This record gives sequence, C-alpha cells and structure tokens, in this order.
Amino acid sequence: MTRRRTVLGAASLGIAGVAIGAVAGDMASDSPSVAAASTSDPVAFHGEHQAGIVTPAQDRLHFASFDVITKKRSDLVDLMKDWTNAARRMTAGRDAGQYGATGGPGEAPPDDTGEALGLPPAGLTLTIGFGGTLFRTADGVDRFGLADRRPAALADIPRLPGDALEAAISGGDICVQACSYDPQVAVHAIRNLARIGFGKVTIRWSQLGFGRTSSTSTTQATPRNLMGFKDGTRNLKAEDGKVLAEQLWVQPGDGAAWMTGGSYVVTRRIRMHIETWDRTSLDEQEQIIGRHKGNGAPLGKRAEFDEPDLAAKDMAEDAHVRLAHPDSHGGAQLLRRGYNFVDGSDGLGRLNAGLFFIAYQRDAHKQFVPVQRLLAQKDTLNEYIKHTSSGLFACPPGVRDDKDYWGSALFA
Amino acid sequence: MTRRRTVLGAASLGIAGVAIGAVAGDMASDSPSVAAASTSDPVAFHGEHQAGIVTPAQDRLHFASFDVITKKRSDLVDLMKDWTNAARRMTAGRDAGQYGATGGPGEAPPDDTGEALGLPPAGLTLTIGFGGTLFRTADGVDRFGLADRRPAALADIPRLPGDALEAAISGGDICVQACSYDPQVAVHAIRNLARIGFGKVTIRWSQLGFGRTSSTSTTQATPRNLMGFKDGTRNLKAEDGKVLAEQLWVQPGDGAAWMTGGSYVVTRRIRMHIETWDRTSLDEQEQIIGRHKGNGAPLGKRAEFDEPDLAAKDMAEDAHVRLAHPDSHGGAQLLRRGYNFVDGSDGLGRLNAGLFFIAYQRDAHKQFVPVQRLLAQKDTLNEYIKHTSSGLFACPPGVRDDKDYWGSALFA
Repeated sequence: MTRRRTVLGAASLGIAGVAIGAVAGDMASDSPSVAAASTSDPVAFHGEHQAGIVTPAQDRLHFASFDVITKKRSDLVDLMKDWTNAARRMTAGRDAGQYGATGGPGEAPPDDTGEALGLPPAGLTLTIGFGGTLFRTADGVDRFGLADRRPAALADIPRLPGDALEAAISGGDICVQACSYDPQVAVHAIRNLARIGFGKVTIRWSQLGFGRTSSTSTTQATPRNLMGFKDGTRNLKAEDGKVLAEQLWVQPGDGAAWMTGGSYVVTRRIRMHIETWDRTSLDEQEQIIGRHKGNGAPLGKRAEFDEPDLAAKDMAEDAHVRLAHPDSHGGAQLLRRGYNFVDGSDGLGRLNAGLFFIAYQRDAHKQFVPVQRLLAQKDTLNEYIKHTSSGLFACPPGVRDDKDYWGSALFA
Repeated sequence: MTRRRTVLGAASLGIAGVAIGAVAGDMASDSPSVAAASTSDPVAFHGEHQAGIVTPAQDRLHFASFDVITKKRSDLVDLMKDWTNAARRMTAGRDAGQYGATGGPGEAPPDDTGEALGLPPAGLTLTIGFGGTLFRTADGVDRFGLADRRPAALADIPRLPGDALEAAISGGDICVQACSYDPQVAVHAIRNLARIGFGKVTIRWSQLGFGRTSSTSTTQATPRNLMGFKDGTRNLKAEDGKVLAEQLWVQPGDGAAWMTGGSYVVTRRIRMHIETWDRTSLDEQEQIIGRHKGNGAPLGKRAEFDEPDLAAKDMAEDAHVRLAHPDSHGGAQLLRRGYNFVDGSDGLGRLNAGLFFIAYQRDAHKQFVPVQRLLAQKDTLNEYIKHTSSGLFACPPGVRDDKDYWGSALFA
C-alpha cells in the first residue's frame, strides 16, 4: 500500500523528472502547453505570498467557490487549519491525510480519495481567497465576527455594462484555485478539500480550465485563447520587480492589515460566441484585437513584444489592445492567470466555450473595475463575448511555516 | 505567419520530442498521466482500422455528438469528404485547411481557428461513428437513403435497469471522438470540424475528459478513476492479437458489409456520487469493487494482474470485478477507453463528476448490453453511480489513403 504519493512518485520519477525538466526548458519558446505539461516537480507551499499567483502559470485549472454552511466561527477556523495541513501535504505530492487512501483502519473512510496515487506533485498550487459574503452582517447577525475586518477593497464589484451574470455561478464565501500540470492532480486537490469540509462548506460552483491563456513569467511563451490569438503579451510577470509592489501585492497602509502581502483576485467566466467569431474575416479579427493573429505583433509592428503605437492610424479607436492598455487607465495593470474552458454544449448546437478570466491585483476597484468598465462600454469584442459569472476574493498573504494556517491574521 | 503547425512544431520540437519520448517510456509504469502527456508525436491517420481505438489511450478527450440538419445526402457526403481532409491534416499537426488561421485573403474568415498554432500533433486521433438515427425512416421519408444499410448491430440499446438517461445528451447522428495528450489540440479539432460543418450539422452534445481511465496497450500503466481505484486492468488491449478479431473488429459476414473492419462504440456518461463514496469505509469500497485499492490486486491475491478467484470466499457475490468478468458473460469482452470528467458543480453543493465510459466492441448487443444488464441488476456500485447519457455508434473501418473518406463504403 502506498500511504504517501511521494514514496512512489519521487522514487520512480527521480532521474526521469530531471531529464524532463531540462527538455521542457528547451521547448518553452514554441510549445507552451505540451512543454509545461512535463513539469512534475512540487512548488513550495510556504512563503511571504501564496503560491499560484506569480508562480509560472501551470497548464490546468480547477477553481472552486465554497459556501460556508456552519454558523460557528470555531468550525471555520478549524477548517482553515485542516485545509492548510491538507494543502501543505498535497502540494508536496503527498496524500491529503495521514493514512492516505489505503492506510489506517479499514472500517474508516480513507482520508484521501486515491485518484492521485502514484502521480507526482505536478506543480500543484492551492490559493485561497475570502469573499465579501464571509464578512457580512445579515439581519443583525455578524456571521463569523468578521464584519469590521472587511477591507474596503473587498466591496462588491459594481454592475458593469453588458453583464449577464448568473448568481448560482458567481461569488461565494471562500475560493480555492488549484493549478497543476496534471488535471487529475488539480481535481484531486479540490475534491479532497471538499471532502474535508463536509458539514462545514459546500461547493457553490466549480470551473475546470484546460489551457492557460496567460504567461506569468518571462520564461513562458505566450499561449493562445479560443479566439486563436496570443493572449496576455503585456501581462504582469513574476520578474517585474517593484511593479509587483505597486500593482499586485497589498502594501502596509492599504487598509486591512491582515491583507498585507496578499492580493485581490477577480474571476469572470467569459463565454465566447466562437461560432460567430469563426465566421469573421481575418482582417476584422485583427482589427478588433489590434494585433496580428500569426505572431501576436501589435498592428503596424513586427514582433509580439513591440510596444503598440496607440496613435497609429492602423490601430482602430476601439481596438482591444488600445482600450486595455495601461495608458488608457492611468497605468493600471493586472496579473492575469486565465484558462480556456469548454463546458460541453449549450443545447443550441454550439460549444459552451470561452475564457475563465482570473486576475490578481492590489485593488480591484482601482484596477479591474475601471479597465473592465471601459472595455464593456467600447470594446467591439463585446459582440463575441458575454460575462456569465463574477467573483472577487481577498487572498491573504502566504502561510509562513508549519504552524501557520490560511487566513491566520484574519482570525487572530 | 505560420500556415502549418508542423512548420513551427516539428522544427522547434525535433530533438526535444525524441528525448521526451524516451523519458516517457521510463516513467510509464508509475505515472501514467504525466508520462503520457509528454507525447507530442503524430498518430497515423490512414489504416485498416480507424485510429483512436487500439491506439494507446491518450490522456485527454473531447467527444462530440452531432445532429445532421441538412436534408440533402450530397451535403452529407461532401461533409464527410471535407471532414476527412481536415482530420487528415489536423492529426498530422497541420491547420484544418489550406490557408490556416492567418493565411489566405484577409477578407475571408480563416480556415483554421488558430488556438493550436505552434502546438505539436500531440498524438491526436479523430474517430468517427454513425448513430442509428442517421439511417432512420420517419414519416415515410428515408433521411439519407440509408435505411436498408443499417446494421442489425446498430439497433437501439434497450432500456436497462436504473437508467437515468437525458435525451439532450444522448444519441446523435454522428459522433467524433478526439483524443490527444494536449486538451487544446483535442478541443481545436472538434471545434474546427463543427466550423466546417456549419449549416450541415450542429453539436448535439459534447464531453471533455481530463484523465484516461483505461489502458488500451500493455505498454501503459493502469490509471485510476474518480473512485480512486485502478480501472480497466482486464481491458482488451492492442496486443491481444486474435482476440481483437473475435471481440473488437467487425468481421466479414457479421452483417452490413460496409462495417467490416469497423467497430461499435458505446458511450455512457456515468455520474458518480463521489461525496457518498468518500464517506464509505475502505473495507466496503474494496468489497464493492473486489480489488485492493492500493495496488489493484483482486481480493485475496497479491498483484494487479493476478487472475481474480471468482470462487473465493473473500470475493463478494456482487463484487464488481466478479459481475463484469468475461466468465460471467460467456467470454464477452470490451475495449474500454473511458475518461474522468468534472463538469463543474450540480447546484446542490456537489461536484458534477464521474466517468465518461467509452467501449468498443464487435457487437454491442452481444457484449455491452448483457454485461451492463447484469451490472445494472446486481452491482452494489449502483448506489454510487447513475448513467445519465447513452450513445451507440457504428465506427466504420479506417480511411485507406488520400482519396478515401470517412464512411466511403457506406455512401458508395
């Protein structure tokens, strides 16, 4: 019996894992998806910031939003401790609990569900965030005694033009983003957190993503979204140094002290009308985006990373690249970490497909909201997309060591 | 501009691809999912049989069922020719059409959607099947003049005990199974076939699978399903020689001559109540399955591939491994090729997760139907699963050469 995934995983993968890592580096410039899929190593769980934000974006996603059903603060705190222990183990490639899927007393349910037995850590990161509803006072009751700790930056996102949000797949009390190079590892992690949380939380909504649509490191090639264009060329990246302090990480004095070193994540499920897009001419597609489809260069430029000329005549007034450019928003930038999705079909003969947008930032009300308001008003791309879900979560700083837990400063 | 994916893919991946292939072989015994994900090479499209059946099961799936909306037989035949050309190109790692996503006249829509630009072939296979409704005579009209060519083996699957089938995600006129080591490549293929079929077909339903749950070759390790158990240990495999002629491939004299060399595929979307399963004791889980969870050995045996002792006292009367064993069905076997899925959540606080069962065989009415009838009546596993969709499709023999097309013998 294999009580720990690492016993099997590390032993059998040792040399092969190193060889693959080396090869993946060579391939990274042209084949982001397959190259990255070779990465089997773990990502460190402890740190100043949570992993899964500037960590080079892994290929696969399982994102879950939970509703808290217990009414007891102590249950919630216990769950955070239990989840942190499980996350610490799983990101290291181990079972979710001490006895694993096949150990312990046989008359007890296993404390791991087993589908990741034998799989390597596969770059798993687990990133937690707290939604505004967790801090809510309703009918005079402060759900968990957190009402006065809600950061101003966690105010609800205002309704934006064109929003077609479905409440059932929006919001939530707690989110967990699981990213990995192996979807089975990401699914296993969310499923085991849900199992551990039985009776305290239920899954409100959940989203799988099969292909990353952004690079979060200069070591990664820019991938393509389901419009066929390179996406996230100008994304904030791990190597951006002090810009990350300006744009990504909550700083001392920003408001709620427990969020210092954290970040705010916005999620938007963006359904694409890909069948309509696919009948649009290449010229029009490129005008709408403002980039060449082949190599991703801004219109009128030659290479992907050339600076767009926003004054150029061949760049349409409402080109996406112009509207989304930091110069159109007082320098506001986002660290995007989105994924392509296909959720089957829509019953009307079309694929239910699009982009699950994920963006981290220091203050969504100063970054995502103004950017999206302008896009929602002017972007021609709106003819081809629809925002069907929305979430805003406060992601606390990293777990420092074995004694720390997710949200410890919030509950202290 | 990259008109052909192979120009970029092959050139940049050459040496790296070989290195990864070698490493993947070393890893196969312990890490089926990640090891296989390294495979970037193409799978041959032409052959006696369609690829994607005994091809070693790739890690990722996009399965689509189409309704034919044109009423003209000539449209349908033209579509089969166009689809075959596109499939031939895409499985070789090329764009879906001559001008790709970024070539040709800019005032025309691209003839590839672009999201797979720069990705290698990634083992893509595309496998087509024809549903019984394509051969239907309704209100005295023979839809496509095929009524007298419907094989007896393509008779509708009878209603089975416990079926909870949803019509909207069952059946269909034509299915295409896309398997690949890169989900973006599989999604791209289905999406481009849908694009090419605009006005002639619409997508009836579509299913993504993130992790294979069977091995179809002795070179592959047995993967785990979402119950955490190794699945498909006794599966029919590519190396089974003459057993494949008995159990998998339609033989001369089996009925409709156009199906000789083909196979019948049954699909069943099996929702798992994983939350209930996760609260079941390890002992009970192992009794229900009839195998040890850790190494997959039959109860009372030591190793995964040991023959189960169906007479043993420690094997429950209704253990899954006993009920599904060929000895319980006059030797009937299946080539299973299923995938794990998570389709978000179900609105009741649970993951909408399970197994998308795919099985190929010579005659579903002599193989799948009696096996499933017994399982549906007696298997304790039924407390934890629900069949929500069903499909049966006749998969014709392989495309022989550049002039041949999918279903040519049917339409001849």
